[in-house]
Amino acid sequence: MSEKIGILIEADAGPGILHQLTGVIARHEGNITSVDIVEERQTYFEIDVKNDPAALLEDLSSLSIVRKVARVKTFQTVFGKRIIIMGGGAQVGQVAIGAISEADRHNIRGEHISVDTIPLVGEQPLADAVRACARLPRIKALVLAGSLMGGDIERAVKEVRAQGLLVVSLNMAGSVPAAADLVVSDPVQAGVMTVMAVSETAKFDLARLKRREF
Amino acid sequence: MSEKIGILIEADAGPGILHQLTGVIARHEGNITSVDIVEERQTYFEIDVKNDPAALLEDLSSLSIVRKVARVKTFQTVFGKRIIIMGGGAQVGQVAIGAISEADRHNIRGEHISVDTIPLVGEQPLADAVRACARLPRIKALVLAGSLMGGDIERAVKEVRAQGLLVVSLNMAGSVPAAADLVVSDPVQAGVMTVMAVSETAKFDLARLKRREF
Repeated sequence: MSEKIGILIEADAGPGILHQLTGVIARHEGNITSVDIVEERQTYFEIDVKNDPAALLEDLSSLSIVRKVARVKTFQTVFGKRIIIMGGGAQVGQVAIGAISEADRHNIRGEHISVDTIPLVGEQPLADAVRACARLPRIKALVLAGSLMGGDIERAVKEVRAQGLLVVSLNMAGSVPAAADLVVSDPVQAGVMTVMAVSETAKFDLARLKRREF
Repeated sequence: MSEKIGILIEADAGPGILHQLTGVIARHEGNITSVDIVEERQTYFEIDVKNDPAALLEDLSSLSIVRKVARVKTFQTVFGKRIIIMGGGAQVGQVAIGAISEADRHNIRGEHISVDTIPLVGEQPLADAVRACARLPRIKALVLAGSLMGGDIERAVKEVRAQGLLVVSLNMAGSVPAAADLVVSDPVQAGVMTVMAVSETAKFDLARLKRREF
């Protein structure tokens, strides 16, 4: 039976440090499922371990480059699933209101859903952000909140949907709504529905909807 | 002169993979400044490289465990600085409205500021989240948005401030406001001020304020 643990390591800075740390983890057959370099000298790992992690922690501590090793709670435990909202400030704010209120209701019942946002202007910055968000850890859904989106943003939406990301679009001008999984006119409703779609405590299933525009 | 590059690698899953990838990067004297395991088979690196990265990319591609190597835009380029808002859903939503509108104004002028949120209830989940957020990549400030916070949340606030994180609190019951850098009564104003404090295009400097409660 494997267990997921969080470890925060303070070590020297510079090339090769991560290679040394991951070498110790590999020798203990730990499977690294998440890693973050917090600042140059702090590295955070989430690791699936098969055995008591005490020996792994001790071997990490005994590396000459390491100053401190501490077990911490995992990001998955604390921040859980993420949805991300991007587009124009006015609309991103309204979608966030709906998504945060709905996430609150699910988190009170034991879920962990985070609502992340970035207001952005312009076709290329938005297309870049859509493509990048498929690489974000723990991401489950993306909401595009604006008045006009198309061109390369539409292509980026199709790419991230092909990678398994749920994409919700406000009802807006341009070709993005036609490329999304779900189109919603009211921004608060868009936020609420997106959280319901990724939640485990909601009875909302996109696949069972008879229409995809609201 | 060093350059920061983003690389997305598709590789086999399982223990030891990250150790092999980081070994190639270390041999090329690349300094890894960020790393994320997107899903089990995809790893994303941000690396400071001194030389033309073509040879590094080629050596990564030639590992037997690697299926695909692609250069991508870095998260720092796309999502930039992050602020995080946590607490009760109603108030987190209002702080988000202010923060997103203000981030929009700065991002239009070329900055990249993201606004992340998580609605949470209870002393221990909030204290855990405060401590964990100091480990989040690119985080600059935390806003605590609620009606009553104290106890272990206050201790966590002191810890993350000691690690250099800016902490803003709504004016609320409990001991958290007294432990924060800045206390703001209006949630929209709290969001706006927090973004101004981390922005480069705003003339707002916490150190120059004559009072810390608004």
